[in-house]
Amino acid sequence: MAILTFGEIMLRLQPFGYKRFMQAEAYEAVYGGGEANVAVSLAQMGEQVKYLTGLPDNRIADKCVNVLRGFGVDTGAIVRRSGRMGIYFCEKGCAQRASEIIYDRAGSVAAGLTLADVDVNAVLDGVEWFHVTGITPALSDGVAELTLALAKAAKEKGITVSCDINYRKKLWSREKANKVMTELVKYVDVLISNEEDVKDVFGIQAEGSDITGGRLSAEGYGKVAREVMKRFPGVKKTAFTLRESISASVNGWSAVLCEGESVFKSKNYVIDIVDRVGGGDSFGAGLIYALKNGYSNAEAIEFATAASCIKQTVEGDFNIVTVAEVKRLAEGDGSGRIQR
Amino acid sequence: MAILTFGEIMLRLQPFGYKRFMQAEAYEAVYGGGEANVAVSLAQMGEQVKYLTGLPDNRIADKCVNVLRGFGVDTGAIVRRSGRMGIYFCEKGCAQRASEIIYDRAGSVAAGLTLADVDVNAVLDGVEWFHVTGITPALSDGVAELTLALAKAAKEKGITVSCDINYRKKLWSREKANKVMTELVKYVDVLISNEEDVKDVFGIQAEGSDITGGRLSAEGYGKVAREVMKRFPGVKKTAFTLRESISASVNGWSAVLCEGESVFKSKNYVIDIVDRVGGGDSFGAGLIYALKNGYSNAEAIEFATAASCIKQTVEGDFNIVTVAEVKRLAEGDGSGRIQR
Amino acid sequence: MAILTFGEIMLRLQPFGYKRFMQAEAYEAVYGGGEANVAVSLAQMGEQVKYLTGLPDNRIADKCVNVLRGFGVDTGAIVRRSGRMGIYFCEKGCAQRASEIIYDRAGSVAAGLTLADVDVNAVLDGVEWFHVTGITPALSDGVAELTLALAKAAKEKGITVSCDINYRKKLWSREKANKVMTELVKYVDVLISNEEDVKDVFGIQAEGSDITGGRLSAEGYGKVAREVMKRFPGVKKTAFTLRESISASVNGWSAVLCEGESVFKSKNYVIDIVDRVGGGDSFGAGLIYALKNGYSNAEAIEFATAASCIKQTVEGDFNIVTVAEVKRLAEGDGSGRIQR
Amino acid sequence: MAILTFGEIMLRLQPFGYKRFMQAEAYEAVYGGGEANVAVSLAQMGEQVKYLTGLPDNRIADKCVNVLRGFGVDTGAIVRRSGRMGIYFCEKGCAQRASEIIYDRAGSVAAGLTLADVDVNAVLDGVEWFHVTGITPALSDGVAELTLALAKAAKEKGITVSCDINYRKKLWSREKANKVMTELVKYVDVLISNEEDVKDVFGIQAEGSDITGGRLSAEGYGKVAREVMKRFPGVKKTAFTLRESISASVNGWSAVLCEGESVFKSKNYVIDIVDRVGGGDSFGAGLIYALKNGYSNAEAIEFATAASCIKQTVEGDFNIVTVAEVKRLAEGDGSGRIQR
Amino acid sequence: MAILTFGEIMLRLQPFGYKRFMQAEAYEAVYGGGEANVAVSLAQMGEQVKYLTGLPDNRIADKCVNVLRGFGVDTGAIVRRSGRMGIYFCEKGCAQRASEIIYDRAGSVAAGLTLADVDVNAVLDGVEWFHVTGITPALSDGVAELTLALAKAAKEKGITVSCDINYRKKLWSREKANKVMTELVKYVDVLISNEEDVKDVFGIQAEGSDITGGRLSAEGYGKVAREVMKRFPGVKKTAFTLRESISASVNGWSAVLCEGESVFKSKNYVIDIVDRVGGGDSFGAGLIYALKNGYSNAEAIEFATAASCIKQTVEGDFNIVTVAEVKRLAEGDGSGRIQR
Amino acid sequence: MAILTFGEIMLRLQPFGYKRFMQAEAYEAVYGGGEANVAVSLAQMGEQVKYLTGLPDNRIADKCVNVLRGFGVDTGAIVRRSGRMGIYFCEKGCAQRASEIIYDRAGSVAAGLTLADVDVNAVLDGVEWFHVTGITPALSDGVAELTLALAKAAKEKGITVSCDINYRKKLWSREKANKVMTELVKYVDVLISNEEDVKDVFGIQAEGSDITGGRLSAEGYGKVAREVMKRFPGVKKTAFTLRESISASVNGWSAVLCEGESVFKSKNYVIDIVDRVGGGDSFGAGLIYALKNGYSNAEAIEFATAASCIKQTVEGDFNIVTVAEVKRLAEGDGSGRIQR
Repeated sequence: MAILTFGEIMLRLQPFGYKRFMQAEAYEAVYGGGEANVAVSLAQMGEQVKYLTGLPDNRIADKCVNVLRGFGVDTGAIVRRSGRMGIYFCEKGCAQRASEIIYDRAGSVAAGLTLADVDVNAVLDGVEWFHVTGITPALSDGVAELTLALAKAAKEKGITVSCDINYRKKLWSREKANKVMTELVKYVDVLISNEEDVKDVFGIQAEGSDITGGRLSAEGYGKVAREVMKRFPGVKKTAFTLRESISASVNGWSAVLCEGESVFKSKNYVIDIVDRVGGGDSFGAGLIYALKNGYSNAEAIEFATAASCIKQTVEGDFNIVTVAEVKRLAEGDGSGRIQR
Repeated sequence: MAILTFGEIMLRLQPFGYKRFMQAEAYEAVYGGGEANVAVSLAQMGEQVKYLTGLPDNRIADKCVNVLRGFGVDTGAIVRRSGRMGIYFCEKGCAQRASEIIYDRAGSVAAGLTLADVDVNAVLDGVEWFHVTGITPALSDGVAELTLALAKAAKEKGITVSCDINYRKKLWSREKANKVMTELVKYVDVLISNEEDVKDVFGIQAEGSDITGGRLSAEGYGKVAREVMKRFPGVKKTAFTLRESISASVNGWSAVLCEGESVFKSKNYVIDIVDRVGGGDSFGAGLIYALKNGYSNAEAIEFATAASCIKQTVEGDFNIVTVAEVKRLAEGDGSGRIQR
Repeated sequence: MAILTFGEIMLRLQPFGYKRFMQAEAYEAVYGGGEANVAVSLAQMGEQVKYLTGLPDNRIADKCVNVLRGFGVDTGAIVRRSGRMGIYFCEKGCAQRASEIIYDRAGSVAAGLTLADVDVNAVLDGVEWFHVTGITPALSDGVAELTLALAKAAKEKGITVSCDINYRKKLWSREKANKVMTELVKYVDVLISNEEDVKDVFGIQAEGSDITGGRLSAEGYGKVAREVMKRFPGVKKTAFTLRESISASVNGWSAVLCEGESVFKSKNYVIDIVDRVGGGDSFGAGLIYALKNGYSNAEAIEFATAASCIKQTVEGDFNIVTVAEVKRLAEGDGSGRIQR
Repeated sequence: MAILTFGEIMLRLQPFGYKRFMQAEAYEAVYGGGEANVAVSLAQMGEQVKYLTGLPDNRIADKCVNVLRGFGVDTGAIVRRSGRMGIYFCEKGCAQRASEIIYDRAGSVAAGLTLADVDVNAVLDGVEWFHVTGITPALSDGVAELTLALAKAAKEKGITVSCDINYRKKLWSREKANKVMTELVKYVDVLISNEEDVKDVFGIQAEGSDITGGRLSAEGYGKVAREVMKRFPGVKKTAFTLRESISASVNGWSAVLCEGESVFKSKNYVIDIVDRVGGGDSFGAGLIYALKNGYSNAEAIEFATAASCIKQTVEGDFNIVTVAEVKRLAEGDGSGRIQR
Repeated sequence: MAILTFGEIMLRLQPFGYKRFMQAEAYEAVYGGGEANVAVSLAQMGEQVKYLTGLPDNRIADKCVNVLRGFGVDTGAIVRRSGRMGIYFCEKGCAQRASEIIYDRAGSVAAGLTLADVDVNAVLDGVEWFHVTGITPALSDGVAELTLALAKAAKEKGITVSCDINYRKKLWSREKANKVMTELVKYVDVLISNEEDVKDVFGIQAEGSDITGGRLSAEGYGKVAREVMKRFPGVKKTAFTLRESISASVNGWSAVLCEGESVFKSKNYVIDIVDRVGGGDSFGAGLIYALKNGYSNAEAIEFATAASCIKQTVEGDFNIVTVAEVKRLAEGDGSGRIQR
Repeated sequence: MAILTFGEIMLRLQPFGYKRFMQAEAYEAVYGGGEANVAVSLAQMGEQVKYLTGLPDNRIADKCVNVLRGFGVDTGAIVRRSGRMGIYFCEKGCAQRASEIIYDRAGSVAAGLTLADVDVNAVLDGVEWFHVTGITPALSDGVAELTLALAKAAKEKGITVSCDINYRKKLWSREKANKVMTELVKYVDVLISNEEDVKDVFGIQAEGSDITGGRLSAEGYGKVAREVMKRFPGVKKTAFTLRESISASVNGWSAVLCEGESVFKSKNYVIDIVDRVGGGDSFGAGLIYALKNGYSNAEAIEFATAASCIKQTVEGDFNIVTVAEVKRLAEGDGSGRIQR
């Protein structure tokens, strides 16, 4: 039984090394996007994964399909037609200099998808888990409608639905996000968020946190989760990632998983960052993998956090990692000693 | 007294070496566009040049401005505002494999310019030559209107107007091109074209040419020119570039300049191609330079052809060359002996 | 219905550009091998393709599987186990300096495969065409036995069998090649060779050829083909590729296809070489595609030759090309004009 | 009103990444030099900047002019003539391994400038701030004479003069530096130094500092400043940068600004170093920008220190940064969170 | 008088930067191996060094000889013959992600050396120090026999013998290692090890250490050394390196040297790792250099530790460093301040 | 018995690929100079070679020594002292665009050598062939004096002396060259030149040649040689290289060797140029190798021309080639077929 993810994948262009946009004579080119990142992670872990998106019928997108397929993702459901694919430019920060992302995603084929483009029943055939993020419905009203249709149909078919809130202020307002996400989360079983997103979209806050100061308090996460689950009774588990931005080069990283009254907290990793983009997605993938494979909540949160810790040492959006590597870290070997 | 050019400049992304799009893990990034290429060429030759376009207010466009300014182009008139800049992907061909270009230019700031964005009189202040290509009015109705306004005002102010027809079938239909260009060419003093464009846009044909066979006959160019000048009495000089595509790696390259009954033909160069994009633009720049600096027609066509021959050995859209280099080639030293 | 190919795939390491081995501070890394190259070509052309080989269970081989899968090749039948994969080092020649290949392939997992490792019936399930080259049985006695078993079983199941002789003197003697290939070709329907291989392995010669002089006569190919088909009555079609090595930088390239008394000769291409490795394999793939899709012999030889002409302008072993591109060239547009 | 800076700019050649000189098969090439770095910083911040230097009339120097002009620096006053430009080779250190710089700057056009080459009045026309460092007069007696003439004329015209002492022991002795700098600082309004330079050149010392131990005491800076201002009554403000070399990879960085009895101390940044060359120059530029634009002393020292903190995360000599970025850091967001 | 080292050198292939094997489109290529690394270090320090190994007679190995010779190593004794050279693939880790090494070394010319290939007396002619590691006898029985013959002959000739235990579990079992190394160490004067190796091979343990926790206790090293020297009375000095793997990016590094009852402990360095491979070998080289040049034990251990600290900031297996740099660090300047 | 060469070696900096100086963001760095190129060629061919020059005592020059030593050149006689080494910037041309070289060699350690720096007798000890070019005495009067002393002493010791005239107009005038070279050639046994140099320096001309037209007549070379040998009776053999610059990308290349009345002409190669710098030096090396190893004049001129043909397909100044490769080409296989 397969996992289905749905969202936009973009061409990501990044100056080499620590070069700034103003110094870029060339760009490294990878592909990435929340749900695609989750799909690739899960395929790397041995899961059967289908990925739904829209892509243009040109060679830039052919290469994207090639890359996804190479990682073992089933690309058969992707809608191809005339148009463009979204692009994002990414400049890697260091120390006190923040990374910068410039989006050039308007007018993509993915953002133009509507309910008419997808046979919802067919695409959910053979699926046991459906994952989406809050970026997808933010793309356009048509995509939002399609997302809701997929989530609703999945729910009706008994498919587990997970959602990472992932609020993007450049794509929609808080009001619109609140309205659409409130509808979407009704169908969600496993909700993933960070402190900011749950506040921005649903107005639910953790106390005592100070984001720019680089220190996030873990307290109150259980309380927030209970608040979420009260508002959305379908949500069985809520997970939060906790990033402490010490600088662009060094981040603290941990997570909590809440179910009912219980709160399971992972180890905290202090990471020398290679590429933090996709960190949250790799967490989502790790959590889905662990829960789908019968890990306990305590094991699942350690596995998901370890997976996403490693992601942040890997270049590109995708978490290229094996289950064995994740387990070794989750079980406590963060020494980085050479594996011969 | 300055030269003004007006058009769109795009980010050009090209896989390294002979890599195909399907093999691209990185792209070389340069900037280019017909009128920008002309502007840079002329600035390199020591002319005072203003370049008018629209660009977004982000760092990708800041870098573009930096590049133009570096070559000595006056970028003060460029309209900056929120939006995107056009992109084109370019895959370099070799031998029997053709180069491929994928455009992703829809919705750019440049294509959104209208008459309201530009103070036509101010931008033409201090200008003695105005150059534009047929790509510019093809961008949108608003840009077409602005182009016509600039050409008309230039004409009225006694500014020399040159235009390279440059028909792009992906941007507009032949019918529309015919309509707009017929209006535009009314204000043109120096017209530049190749055999295909004058046929596609105005239905005027050179006999005995066979484009895909890699052989273009030079005969009949004078006849075509006279036909053009009959239809557009304001046009004083008409120049044609003649590319013989022997393969993607080797091209024949020559040109003719027609004035009245006279036809001036350049030497023919057989070129090992490094980058042929921008070849026509470098010809236009060479011609403008030569005519503006009092070269005879015979000298001008040799200078312009030599300049554009060298361009095709230079990477990127821009012709990075000195007047001295062009003169040495135009005067007959194509031996490529090392200059120590 | 699928195509199956069987053989070894190696890691190919090549100094950047025209650097010699003595100058190599880094190597470009791709993967290639005769039957894998055929598989990738056919998958790019839209065919369903299975590829059978042996690979070690390490990340160098995981990457290889990722690459094959990315191009759409079904890698499910690949045998993975402890060991190494073959490597070949390739130095690109230029002009009078020949390319050099250093093999480091002994002891690979692929060369260690035996009949016991493969369920012949299962792997041929759903297959309508089986392709192999003479490199495969040369790897080891075990692999030779497996190759023969596959060919024999394919023949019995009515699967079309094609074989490219591809004699490699470093892998086996002429005597051994003669013995094994004589057995193998009994099951072959479509035989591919060049002038040298048919002579080295079967002692059948084309008259009037002078290989090192860079000129190969086309005469007598029909005669050679009839000789081949007399000795191997099962062979219905024989194709020969004709390479004229003018220099390492420029090669003539054409081919003939013989059936019964008829000889179909392709156009001759003079190619500015980017990478000639895999040229023969791309020809084989083009021929299989054309014959499988009902092309006439005359069309098939033009398609196969055009496909392999383009291959030699593409870096790496694989022919990354679309059917549309091949058709455009086969139909006569070798002008290399930019495709916008 | 413009800012003028005067000094030498060199070609900087640096092995890629952490490669040592002994491993260099290629060099990254940028341009840099104290006053050019200041000029580029200020132009990036929107100031009108003229840069005076001498450069050879070859293409290596043409590229340098192109780069400066690209950043918006007015290069019209640069003296071009036959000769060479200085070069410096830079090997990037890491951890306990120090960066190494090899100078090859003798005999440059810049070092050969004399009073006869520059029309002092013309170059100061329209200028309201003149900046120079102690490197410039160290180049040669002729350059020293020219520097003094410029400073003196600037003073007479009421132009603000700033100077960074920047003592380079390879260029001149302490005795000579003392003599020339004593004359130069007479005309200076804003003096910039670090602890070592003020001691080496003027023999004025801060107590309790231990440079190689990686800890610099902040105490006594006010005292040193008052000593400086006593000796040079024209100096109104004195700024000191305080680098704590924890290792080649990690540096502490802060600064103080002294005026009269007041001492304004900036935050201390602990920086993961990308490129520390030009750190002091970016501080100077930040200070000039802030003072010229009416910042208070407290704001100015924070702005200058934040600017130079960011510089050390940017490759090359130049500080490529916007005023907005500097302000964000100066106002306290050093978290390095992604800017989307 | 020369130093002789004997062992295998391999081609090392490493993805660029922090790329994983799955992302490798190219590999940086260097050469390395325990005893070769020692040889190069010592040659860089001005010592006369001979290096004995076996290499194939191809250009990949010619390049290896070129590299060794470039660093001043005498390669005249290297046995060249048909075959392959060992390869190892190295993926650089970061933070919690460990570096990974994949060996492909079976069947190398070096591993096939036997007593018959080397004239032991000739190769020891003019030698005053012989160094080998435990990797060499692990290559094969033939190499083990040759190693013992060299060590025994060296001992008989009064040549100082040093040995780094360097246990590699992929090459031989603990039982076999114990048997062979017990014989080898009989001839050894200076023994080098780390805590793990002495335990794995000889079963001698330091108390209170916890390797994966990233903290190694220094206590008990003297006791272990005395135990070693009791078992092997010929061993006069025993040195231990102490690596604390805080993460793949940051390691603690120190060492102790034991002679009789005395224990000399070096400073501890916390290193931002560029490349830790070859760290132990550079320590061995530093120790040999120091002892051979009459340093006291206290000086020797500081010199060797400083040398190997710097190595870990240098890319590749080899420690490219001067004696002056090592001394500067050993004497306490770890500030990493720029050397101009 | 060894070969000695004497001259300057420079750091050569070249933009990547076909980039122009104006586009250079990085330079490939190799080392080269006439006599060093000859030394490396001969060492690659198995000859014992000593190279005499002057180099600074910095790491840029240490790397140069490392490179030379790597190729097997004896660098023991090189004079090292404080100063700089010469640099030359090289921009690679293509087609009608000529390569450009910018020299920055003034004031080098090599140019500062005098008779006092070299023990002429010691350096000639064990030498049987001494080679120099006309570039060396052009460096300075001191170097000219030293060159003459070496040539004279060599002559007296019965050492064969060869000289390549290599006139460089940027280093000295024709008058000065005539005066010094007339003295030097008195001691020369084997003289190498091209048509231009013998005319520029000695005023001896070949009739019917037209250099810029890309066609050089071979007629009259015998006559020129006889004229040379009449003027310099010590010259036993005179060789001329004949380059036909068809373009920067394609050159004809052949040579003649004259002894007494006999003229031996090589095959003519039409070469797709990778790097033509050092072509003449590789010819000189090939000629020395052939004559020293007893080749007939006819064999020697074919060997030398083949060697230098291959050089022009190799990047950098040095001819990295084996005797076997040269022989294969000299014996007629210029087909460039892959060597497996």
